Amino acid sequence: MGMVGGGKGAFIGAIHRAAANLDGEIELVCGAFSSNPQNCLESAEMLNIPANRSYTDFNTMFTEEAKLPAAQRMQFVSIVTPNHLHYPVAKAALEAGFHVMSDKPATFTLNEAIDLKDIVEKSGCLYGLTHTYTGYPMVKEAASRVANGELGEITKIVVEYSQGWLASKDDEDGKQASWRLDPARAGVSCCMGDIGVHAANLAETISGLEIVKLCADLEPVVDGRQLDDDGTVLLRFNNGAKGVLLSSQIAVGEENNLNIRIYGSKASLQWQQMEPNTLWLRFSDKPSQMIRAGVGECAAATAQSLRTPAGHPEGYIEAFANIYRQFAQQIRDFDDAKPSDITMQAPGIKEAIRGMAFIENTVAASHSPQKWHPFLLSNIQLPGDKV
Amino acid sequence: MGMVGGGKGAFIGAIHRAAANLDGEIELVCGAFSSNPQNCLESAEMLNIPANRSYTDFNTMFTEEAKLPAAQRMQFVSIVTPNHLHYPVAKAALEAGFHVMSDKPATFTLNEAIDLKDIVEKSGCLYGLTHTYTGYPMVKEAASRVANGELGEITKIVVEYSQGWLASKDDEDGKQASWRLDPARAGVSCCMGDIGVHAANLAETISGLEIVKLCADLEPVVDGRQLDDDGTVLLRFNNGAKGVLLSSQIAVGEENNLNIRIYGSKASLQWQQMEPNTLWLRFSDKPSQMIRAGVGECAAATAQSLRTPAGHPEGYIEAFANIYRQFAQQIRDFDDAKPSDITMQAPGIKEAIRGMAFIENTVAASHSPQKWHPFLLSNIQLPGDKV
Amino acid sequence: MGMVGGGKGAFIGAIHRAAANLDGEIELVCGAFSSNPQNCLESAEMLNIPANRSYTDFNTMFTEEAKLPAAQRMQFVSIVTPNHLHYPVAKAALEAGFHVMSDKPATFTLNEAIDLKDIVEKSGCLYGLTHTYTGYPMVKEAASRVANGELGEITKIVVEYSQGWLASKDDEDGKQASWRLDPARAGVSCCMGDIGVHAANLAETISGLEIVKLCADLEPVVDGRQLDDDGTVLLRFNNGAKGVLLSSQIAVGEENNLNIRIYGSKASLQWQQMEPNTLWLRFSDKPSQMIRAGVGECAAATAQSLRTPAGHPEGYIEAFANIYRQFAQQIRDFDDAKPSDITMQAPGIKEAIRGMAFIENTVAASHSPQKWHPFLLSNIQLPGDKV
Amino acid sequence: MGMVGGGKGAFIGAIHRAAANLDGEIELVCGAFSSNPQNCLESAEMLNIPANRSYTDFNTMFTEEAKLPAAQRMQFVSIVTPNHLHYPVAKAALEAGFHVMSDKPATFTLNEAIDLKDIVEKSGCLYGLTHTYTGYPMVKEAASRVANGELGEITKIVVEYSQGWLASKDDEDGKQASWRLDPARAGVSCCMGDIGVHAANLAETISGLEIVKLCADLEPVVDGRQLDDDGTVLLRFNNGAKGVLLSSQIAVGEENNLNIRIYGSKASLQWQQMEPNTLWLRFSDKPSQMIRAGVGECAAATAQSLRTPAGHPEGYIEAFANIYRQFAQQIRDFDDAKPSDITMQAPGIKEAIRGMAFIENTVAASHSPQKWHPFLLSNIQLPGDKV
Repeated sequence: MGMVGGGKGAFIGAIHRAAANLDGEIELVCGAFSSNPQNCLESAEMLNIPANRSYTDFNTMFTEEAKLPAAQRMQFVSIVTPNHLHYPVAKAALEAGFHVMSDKPATFTLNEAIDLKDIVEKSGCLYGLTHTYTGYPMVKEAASRVANGELGEITKIVVEYSQGWLASKDDEDGKQASWRLDPARAGVSCCMGDIGVHAANLAETISGLEIVKLCADLEPVVDGRQLDDDGTVLLRFNNGAKGVLLSSQIAVGEENNLNIRIYGSKASLQWQQMEPNTLWLRFSDKPSQMIRAGVGECAAATAQSLRTPAGHPEGYIEAFANIYRQFAQQIRDFDDAKPSDITMQAPGIKEAIRGMAFIENTVAASHSPQKWHPFLLSNIQLPGDKV
Repeated sequence: MGMVGGGKGAFIGAIHRAAANLDGEIELVCGAFSSNPQNCLESAEMLNIPANRSYTDFNTMFTEEAKLPAAQRMQFVSIVTPNHLHYPVAKAALEAGFHVMSDKPATFTLNEAIDLKDIVEKSGCLYGLTHTYTGYPMVKEAASRVANGELGEITKIVVEYSQGWLASKDDEDGKQASWRLDPARAGVSCCMGDIGVHAANLAETISGLEIVKLCADLEPVVDGRQLDDDGTVLLRFNNGAKGVLLSSQIAVGEENNLNIRIYGSKASLQWQQMEPNTLWLRFSDKPSQMIRAGVGECAAATAQSLRTPAGHPEGYIEAFANIYRQFAQQIRDFDDAKPSDITMQAPGIKEAIRGMAFIENTVAASHSPQKWHPFLLSNIQLPGDKV
Repeated sequence: MGMVGGGKGAFIGAIHRAAANLDGEIELVCGAFSSNPQNCLESAEMLNIPANRSYTDFNTMFTEEAKLPAAQRMQFVSIVTPNHLHYPVAKAALEAGFHVMSDKPATFTLNEAIDLKDIVEKSGCLYGLTHTYTGYPMVKEAASRVANGELGEITKIVVEYSQGWLASKDDEDGKQASWRLDPARAGVSCCMGDIGVHAANLAETISGLEIVKLCADLEPVVDGRQLDDDGTVLLRFNNGAKGVLLSSQIAVGEENNLNIRIYGSKASLQWQQMEPNTLWLRFSDKPSQMIRAGVGECAAATAQSLRTPAGHPEGYIEAFANIYRQFAQQIRDFDDAKPSDITMQAPGIKEAIRGMAFIENTVAASHSPQKWHPFLLSNIQLPGDKV
Repeated sequence: MGMVGGGKGAFIGAIHRAAANLDGEIELVCGAFSSNPQNCLESAEMLNIPANRSYTDFNTMFTEEAKLPAAQRMQFVSIVTPNHLHYPVAKAALEAGFHVMSDKPATFTLNEAIDLKDIVEKSGCLYGLTHTYTGYPMVKEAASRVANGELGEITKIVVEYSQGWLASKDDEDGKQASWRLDPARAGVSCCMGDIGVHAANLAETISGLEIVKLCADLEPVVDGRQLDDDGTVLLRFNNGAKGVLLSSQIAVGEENNLNIRIYGSKASLQWQQMEPNTLWLRFSDKPSQMIRAGVGECAAATAQSLRTPAGHPEGYIEAFANIYRQFAQQIRDFDDAKPSDITMQAPGIKEAIRGMAFIENTVAASHSPQKWHPFLLSNIQLPGDKV
């Protein structure tokens, strides 16, 4: 693979590389690691990329790599730039004939995501999106249990993603904080765009349902912020199920508290990202079951997502690596013209669009005095829009 | 004490008696246990109440007891009847000069609660309300920590009370279920009236804040129900803090999941009723503290609410008994014309009114297409009301 | 009931009374609360005991109570004196024809316990012993699961009772500490006598097995102590199962950590006193089951030991009250000449003897350079004994 | 690096490679993956190793690699063969001038480990041993806390490593089980050799203490086994602290339950491998602290062992990768003739010897009727030894 962004000092690039490295199936062969040539040089050296495959801009990389023999050139590009570049880089890569694995969010606006869908389709290439949390084995297991009907009809979903790192004005100075709170760089939302969207994705991915209606309360908690740092969204799903989505970056004491509960007519399940190897299945009239990764029977997708025996915890990087491993398999299947296992596909363009729609719908709904709003997939009227 | 309701077979009456018995400070001396004379008889026998102090109606009980010498007659009455009788029994008792400890909810409507306030004031008697959960030692500790300023400015409260026992149509046949789902007996709300109101009370009690605005989503989940069996309420408190209140009776697998998280600018706390002897204090930049009942220093109100050394779990009945013990102390203070310790008072008429207002406000707000509604303390326009 | 010991200021007496009060079935009618006449007076007043039934010595109490008509006199005596008096008070009570409920340990020495057995048998009276922890509902459930064969053949038991309150020399000044570390008042052991014996009792009670062999390491941790403050005992049970019993009073940070794991050929179970309403059933090849008090089906003995619906935690006092309630039922059955339900009997003279034997066997084994020792029920050679 | 063993289908080889891959610092350049030439071929292909660097025996590999220019040849060898080959392969590698990273146990016997020490010293090369669990960040933190004196004087250590996968005769058929229970392939111990030794290593590593005396009970639980499948060891450490080490492979329901508690005069700590990102610090008189990876200040060694922000769980593979990363740094320091940070060194030859001594001492002590035995570092009399 090649990489755009992720030069020395970048956090998420390092995680993507660790994830890609883990299984020894993917090799980083080239990169346009930074807009800063010195950083490009140093990053390439650090990563053992030969000088002739370290590029200073992504367009050159795509052009030059495309000239290499198929066996040598990168097979896909991993995009780990700042958010506003995700779309143009993905567009350029796809148009140059490369598969794309993009960091989340897919684009800067919903309209870009809609355009991207056309571009993906025209290119005939594969597009993957690192909604990391869906890579966890027990998320696969949860989705399988719902699909099997073990929960009965889904009646209610409570999903939360809470953090505390933006709880005070003092927290705003950090590199991560400053761009996330800046509309010009982060887009229309901070909290919902950064983490709320993961919660929404998790709820839809596990339940197999889609949000159709929402009521949002995204007011920022810390004075003087232009973007939301906390929010709650009331939901309705397409089967009529109710939902509550809580998200916060001002919840002091929360680390990375992503958790979900899905209630059905027969049973419920509960999963927490911070203890990811456990899935709870609960009933009204018999003991709860603590389903543990590697203990007893599990879904095929779960088993394929595990690397160690029961009781050897797997974590965030392994979940991330699962997304990469799935994508690598999709590429092999693509090359072999075989269909991919639907339960083992990386999140893709559908999730890209629904994610951007979630962000824009919550922001729009939050500014409205009206309670309920349909979940739109286009033409969302945002607060600053001129009518 | 005397008791109205709670005859043989009644659940909550037995709990009230256990709570009153626990410390050996309160003696049950008379009762009007049932509207059924045979049950009265059997209950009195079971409880060792002499026949002449077992009454078949509460008015007679108040009249007859009032005639007894002060040292013999009951000092207060515990009301554990069905909800619609709480108000008339309390009114009669207060007007006969007896202190009242009432099961929750205080009344059937907000208007009755407002009337009751006048009656309490006129009577000069004490009025207590068993919002049981505030009797837990660690709830006292939590309130003390907030009052001390350890959390800084409160920014957000997430409170939940979820159960699963009304998750299906089949669950509706039970005695408890049938009256709770019947507007004629339960009032305007099932879930919010039964348990959501405890969550609201807990949030206000610990935080010392008051709800001033809300947005409610109380639609019933199970088909054919006239009253809510699940709901979420978005909140604003009088200091501007945001809140989310989740409550459900259809959350399969939940037992009695009352839990609260209060986030402040400096720290947050978390408490769960099902593990009541633990209180979490959490920070952004240092280890979380697991505060345990009986370990190290605690607030005076906490210490006074504990009966055993650290590690000997105390539970629901002890919390309930604390409410009774507090009320017994209030009566002693009253008799001695001494002021009562404000941190050690049973919930009273203020909580009665705010509780009934919470119920009616959420129901009214839920029926409105408008998002936010002020939290009113009178003249709430309910759906069925004729304008 | 009558009470010997437990005057004002005594800890365990108050717990016994709360336990006896809880269900309103047992009334305290007389007492010899203290060897101090002033304390007797004040205690009687505090407890609403008429002056003529407040006695200053236990012999008088037994004599005088025996003279009262059957309907008036106490039906049993609760013994909550310091340990060395348990035996003489029990003996006197039994010989006067009163049933006895004794605080633990039953006696000061194994020989006394053996004598006591004869006395109980001769008296024809009932004898109960407050091994409190066996009163927990989930301990009943655990025993039932083992008896049902759900675990298969028991292969290993790990039981622990750890506390930290005697971790330093400074802790020795307290009233509780000073007598427990004094051989003249505590007997041959501190840690094993006070709490290790509860662990042994719990293991035997749940498993239905008996210890037949042991290896002990009871050396005190804090310098200068004559009695053990920490110990580990390796065990063999009568079916060949292996065991490990850990007990400590110097385990800083432990509150009252009594927990047990019982492994069988088919499944294992785990219970922790500090979260007593949960019992774990675990398997090799399927999800663990979290069995919760009040959820789904349970053993009859479990159901009879519960007072509240699922999710309303019950604790130490309720467990203690269960022992009293069981004993009250045994007395009623005795009066009715009916057999008592064996799963609902309070611990008795058998547990008294095995408990004292456990203490003396571990002390003797600990002083021996030899690894294994048979578990003897008489004639144990203690270190100070003259041969 | 080069690898000996770990061909297609081998479990632990894959884990070593994932661990080595994770940070992109270590490249697998050659291997003698199997004694089976076909497996060698297929493994090399699977791992993208050129045919000329895929060797069919380790001696050839060492000879050939040594001939390559320094910049091309492997820098160290990772040994992931069956146990009995660890010693001869390590010896050959060291004598050929290659650093060695060996899977655990270091050798087949203590005598081999003692020999190996000489060989390491003579070679001037580095020797690392994958006692994986010491690679966890919170194990580093725990060791740092003890070294800082936060616990005061260590008084007691309870360490456990329990699994359930060998609980029944039926479990013996698997590939892993059959060799572990065979003295010819596993050595003198199954349970202690496989996992008990990790527990001992963890206790010594965190506490900085050394076992000096022990009493062991290793009898197998399942009939017909020649080697232990369960055992308990009573310990004394060189500062006088007491210890208990529990280990089992027949504990049905246990996954990989490695946990440790270290009690000191001032505080205690607790860590569990199955929730590895949490470390508990507990006190007698103030709230317990839940120390979480990435929250607040931590030791330098902890910080260097983390890859993600707080709340993104890291697990077993990351711990394993830390051992590799430490070893890679040791090699760089070696090449630069710089001293390595002592808190960041991979376990080495000292741990190799103490580990083998632990295994042989426990087996010897278990066969003795005498309780206590000194912990010997040579000349241990094993049961089968001819005197």
